[in-house]
Amino acid sequence: MFADTYSTSIKVNADFTVSFELPKLSFMFPQNYPYVGEWETVSIGLNKKFIWKASTNNYYITKDLIKNVLRIRGKFDHKGTYGHGLIVGGSYGKMGAVILAAQACLRSGAGLVSVHIPKCGYEILQTSLPEVMISIDSSQEYFSFLPKNLGIYTAIAVGPGIDTKKQTQKALLSLIKSVKNPLIIDADGINILANNKDQLKHLPENSVLTPHPKEFERLVGKTKNDFDRNNLQVAFAKKHKIFLILKTAHTAIACPDGTCYFNSTGNPGMATAGSGDVLTGILCGLLTQGYTPLETSVLGVYLHGLAGDIAANADAEQSLIASDIIEHLGEAFKEIED
Amino acid sequence: MFADTYSTSIKVNADFTVSFELPKLSFMFPQNYPYVGEWETVSIGLNKKFIWKASTNNYYITKDLIKNVLRIRGKFDHKGTYGHGLIVGGSYGKMGAVILAAQACLRSGAGLVSVHIPKCGYEILQTSLPEVMISIDSSQEYFSFLPKNLGIYTAIAVGPGIDTKKQTQKALLSLIKSVKNPLIIDADGINILANNKDQLKHLPENSVLTPHPKEFERLVGKTKNDFDRNNLQVAFAKKHKIFLILKTAHTAIACPDGTCYFNSTGNPGMATAGSGDVLTGILCGLLTQGYTPLETSVLGVYLHGLAGDIAANADAEQSLIASDIIEHLGEAFKEIED
Amino acid sequence: MFADTYSTSIKVNADFTVSFELPKLSFMFPQNYPYVGEWETVSIGLNKKFIWKASTNNYYITKDLIKNVLRIRGKFDHKGTYGHGLIVGGSYGKMGAVILAAQACLRSGAGLVSVHIPKCGYEILQTSLPEVMISIDSSQEYFSFLPKNLGIYTAIAVGPGIDTKKQTQKALLSLIKSVKNPLIIDADGINILANNKDQLKHLPENSVLTPHPKEFERLVGKTKNDFDRNNLQVAFAKKHKIFLILKTAHTAIACPDGTCYFNSTGNPGMATAGSGDVLTGILCGLLTQGYTPLETSVLGVYLHGLAGDIAANADAEQSLIASDIIEHLGEAFKEIED
Amino acid sequence: MFADTYSTSIKVNADFTVSFELPKLSFMFPQNYPYVGEWETVSIGLNKKFIWKASTNNYYITKDLIKNVLRIRGKFDHKGTYGHGLIVGGSYGKMGAVILAAQACLRSGAGLVSVHIPKCGYEILQTSLPEVMISIDSSQEYFSFLPKNLGIYTAIAVGPGIDTKKQTQKALLSLIKSVKNPLIIDADGINILANNKDQLKHLPENSVLTPHPKEFERLVGKTKNDFDRNNLQVAFAKKHKIFLILKTAHTAIACPDGTCYFNSTGNPGMATAGSGDVLTGILCGLLTQGYTPLETSVLGVYLHGLAGDIAANADAEQSLIASDIIEHLGEAFKEIED
Repeated sequence: MFADTYSTSIKVNADFTVSFELPKLSFMFPQNYPYVGEWETVSIGLNKKFIWKASTNNYYITKDLIKNVLRIRGKFDHKGTYGHGLIVGGSYGKMGAVILAAQACLRSGAGLVSVHIPKCGYEILQTSLPEVMISIDSSQEYFSFLPKNLGIYTAIAVGPGIDTKKQTQKALLSLIKSVKNPLIIDADGINILANNKDQLKHLPENSVLTPHPKEFERLVGKTKNDFDRNNLQVAFAKKHKIFLILKTAHTAIACPDGTCYFNSTGNPGMATAGSGDVLTGILCGLLTQGYTPLETSVLGVYLHGLAGDIAANADAEQSLIASDIIEHLGEAFKEIED
Repeated sequence: MFADTYSTSIKVNADFTVSFELPKLSFMFPQNYPYVGEWETVSIGLNKKFIWKASTNNYYITKDLIKNVLRIRGKFDHKGTYGHGLIVGGSYGKMGAVILAAQACLRSGAGLVSVHIPKCGYEILQTSLPEVMISIDSSQEYFSFLPKNLGIYTAIAVGPGIDTKKQTQKALLSLIKSVKNPLIIDADGINILANNKDQLKHLPENSVLTPHPKEFERLVGKTKNDFDRNNLQVAFAKKHKIFLILKTAHTAIACPDGTCYFNSTGNPGMATAGSGDVLTGILCGLLTQGYTPLETSVLGVYLHGLAGDIAANADAEQSLIASDIIEHLGEAFKEIED
Repeated sequence: MFADTYSTSIKVNADFTVSFELPKLSFMFPQNYPYVGEWETVSIGLNKKFIWKASTNNYYITKDLIKNVLRIRGKFDHKGTYGHGLIVGGSYGKMGAVILAAQACLRSGAGLVSVHIPKCGYEILQTSLPEVMISIDSSQEYFSFLPKNLGIYTAIAVGPGIDTKKQTQKALLSLIKSVKNPLIIDADGINILANNKDQLKHLPENSVLTPHPKEFERLVGKTKNDFDRNNLQVAFAKKHKIFLILKTAHTAIACPDGTCYFNSTGNPGMATAGSGDVLTGILCGLLTQGYTPLETSVLGVYLHGLAGDIAANADAEQSLIASDIIEHLGEAFKEIED
Repeated sequence: MFADTYSTSIKVNADFTVSFELPKLSFMFPQNYPYVGEWETVSIGLNKKFIWKASTNNYYITKDLIKNVLRIRGKFDHKGTYGHGLIVGGSYGKMGAVILAAQACLRSGAGLVSVHIPKCGYEILQTSLPEVMISIDSSQEYFSFLPKNLGIYTAIAVGPGIDTKKQTQKALLSLIKSVKNPLIIDADGINILANNKDQLKHLPENSVLTPHPKEFERLVGKTKNDFDRNNLQVAFAKKHKIFLILKTAHTAIACPDGTCYFNSTGNPGMATAGSGDVLTGILCGLLTQGYTPLETSVLGVYLHGLAGDIAANADAEQSLIASDIIEHLGEAFKEIED
């Protein structure tokens, strides 16, 4: 098997693969799993600086890297230091997505968190999350108008549970034009963009999009294989000057500068309803407190996977649900600091 | 006492009974408890394969058997791998049954879970279970119409808390005709079938029904003793090509092929409100992620009892409530894997 | 100080008092606390049987006594074995009392639990307690009519949060006439009886009333001192053939036969909102599963105090809230069994 | 750097500073953090009594001091002993603030807790806090009228989530004139006072106000530096005969007698939404059970920080949310007693 290109010719089924110093790009892709199996890296004495400065544009997110990204809080920091995040989400029958995202946003360290929701979510949100404030939409059942005072929010995430109704599409497209700072966009937010590709040019620079493979396909197009998909992902991120996060086992973060980061945490127990909403909330929480979009993407994806690993370890992959990931975020932060 | 037939003639009260290699059928029945007491099996060196292939149609569900049924998740599995389950349930004053079933469904490993509920349950469900999506019935207070887009659901369970109103009966009978895949049917779902026995022929093959003894009696008829009841149970399962699970201390699973599996886990602390709804949810969760109806029945019944045993051990049988069973499902999965 | 009568003449302030074999009656009363302080009993070799058969009508509830009362569950017991309890309670702004009582009822081992509540409590109860079913009153805001099918309930408790509105008074008085089995009556249920003393004759025999000192005073009348109060309590219980439980530090249970039991568990951290509602729920749970009213009173009061002691030990008396008592009921059952 | 006055002339950046016996005033202020860093006191053998009686008006709140303030519960104490607290708060979209304050009030030891809230909060509060009773406002969305029977409440806190609508301003100003006992006032309660400074004369003596720095500025005015701000704080507290608590890293309590207490507990993880609402609830809980306003302020601020420290230690500062502080109040009480 070639390390960095796709080949259908010669393959060997493997249970375990050893790589020198760093994993190969091919290890990152689902299609190669039968030929790679589980893997491990072995140090052959290369200087660490050399490795990271190698001509590759692909990085593997390790705990060492994350330790450098994570900031320690200052003694006299106050609520204002950590910003005010907003989650725009929810529609009739899908309000839970906002609960998960908002709770994850709070637990990731945002100073204040508000949600913009349709009226049918008012009591649901206030009962579930006493720490969260509400901006109410004029619609009973879906996102239909811009939140007031958009300027008070340090960072905004949009998408969890919003559905793709016409008025919601209009509201979302109006939102991306009204905001200058990077946005976090997920789920039906991405599907709406896929339906309105001519509007992609209005996306604020350095916005972070987090499609799963099907949403990716709708947004970017069909691809022949995983190598091809990765190439397209990077090209799309460069072209639109965004961070494009493709959620798979080794979640890949394509950056506006053409680099790509692959995640090392997470487990298949996280293939459960609402897991993506939790990631959206974490990303919003990090961006809100002042991490750059690159730091937000790399740290957020790593934290999400690590909290999921801790959760799966505490119980079992089969019974892991999205709320468990949120519940173990504190331990994940702690494990990085140790 | 005869091992496999009922006799009223000769009995001895016993506190403890010893059996060779495998428990006797008679140990499984409530009526024999005074004559059997607690029991234990002793190995006399029979070859294990021989035991399982013996001419009996009765099996005892052991951890060894379950270990072979349980599947390990693959690294690149995603939410789609684990399907989309639907719980149809609830009516005014009995919405909790759906909460318990849906939560158990999620915690058993379904990828996505939706509930189809009357309008009076909307806020209750969204507040209680953020991971679950809602399909809303046109009725305010009960199940009255088929959910839309039935085709998107991998598996469907119906019954918890639905009551037996006329329109609900109509909707349930329409549901069993509209679905090709096996259904899970519990509680008032079974009572409705008992009221409409001519409709049993429309049950999708390999459906799983989970009556407690009273519901069983309504569905199958009165029986003279526990041996007789077991014979009727097996005959009914064969005739209607369904899995018929009779919930007692040693819950019995009668299969379409005439075999019968007896469960080895569980405790009388599980004789508590909602315990059956949790079993329904577990079965739906397993069927949703691709277990066969036989695997679903055997693994589901075992998991339910094991989680209940862990819960009773953590606190006490007297104070065990249904939510505790759900909470300990993760540990039950883990204990099987160990 | 005299052991069993009240005297104002000779007293000594004490920090610690020693008694032989059994505590003295005077130790049980608040007014004597400054003269008794903490106390401890010392065995002087009296035969245990002799002690319990002594001519006194006063008993001290010890763990030994409780161990004999507590029943172990049978292997083939089912939900029906443990009955169906009903809590009648709640009014606008006081729905929490029903939540606490119903949850305690479930956690004490009732097979099924329903609540009869005004409409304003519907979503609150269904969201808080999925295991509990609802019987809805025709009034929006208070208890105004008898629940339907009263006959399906094994035991009924009435009082938590019902307020004393005219129509509620009428409904409660109608309830005590409609029921033959013993009732549990607490809080405003007692206040309503105090306002309608001529109706006390309709109380089902062996009903259990659980006033705190102020409710006691309204029901039974003012008393000069704690000895006097205890005498009146016993006389009232005898006259009306009820169990009259006066809630203080050493809660006293006066029985229809003129005996009185004093509790040995509990702590001042339990002097918190809803603590009495939890006791009502426990008593209803025990009566529902078949304990006699005497066993219910003695075991219920002991369990309530023990769960409170475990809770106060886990955190601190100051921060103990009523829900904590419920949460630790399982450990209390377990501690008695050990 | 001078210990007790502000000087811009000579400074040295420090990572760690050592002080003799007691910390210096300058250590308490954010502006000096770069020049002080972390610090520690070293005993040089001064007599403890001497230290506390030194001519300074500034005190540092240590565990020793707090141990003397904390009261142990008496065996025969009952619910009435611990009073009935009222939290006036909440408005449409900000009901969570009342939940947090009321829960903290209960967990701090109040005997009974009620909330006065607009109608839009009814189900939210009853679902979230079964132990809490409700006084309902005639307005759907905000605080607009005085609660009935104000006389039944032992202590009242007002402010969390009330917003500053005209009618709310009127209601709050009417409240401060109707109450003789000290009030706890926070958040928009303070902002309303800042908008109506001529009404400050109506504040009940010994009321406790808890502004964060921005609310402080609105109420007291802009200040040149932290020393200046502290001087103004003390002067304001003296003039208006109130306890003025300025929430920063070393929260400062300025007393009516011109003294000032600086807190020693807390961490930057507490810079999170709702943290202030929790403090309001704790203060109300302590005042309700009979602590003096000085004891309430000193013990409340210390407990709040200590519970936050325990919470941050259990998980991580970044993921700490306000509910965690409440959850760890019991351990905080316990740590003080040890």
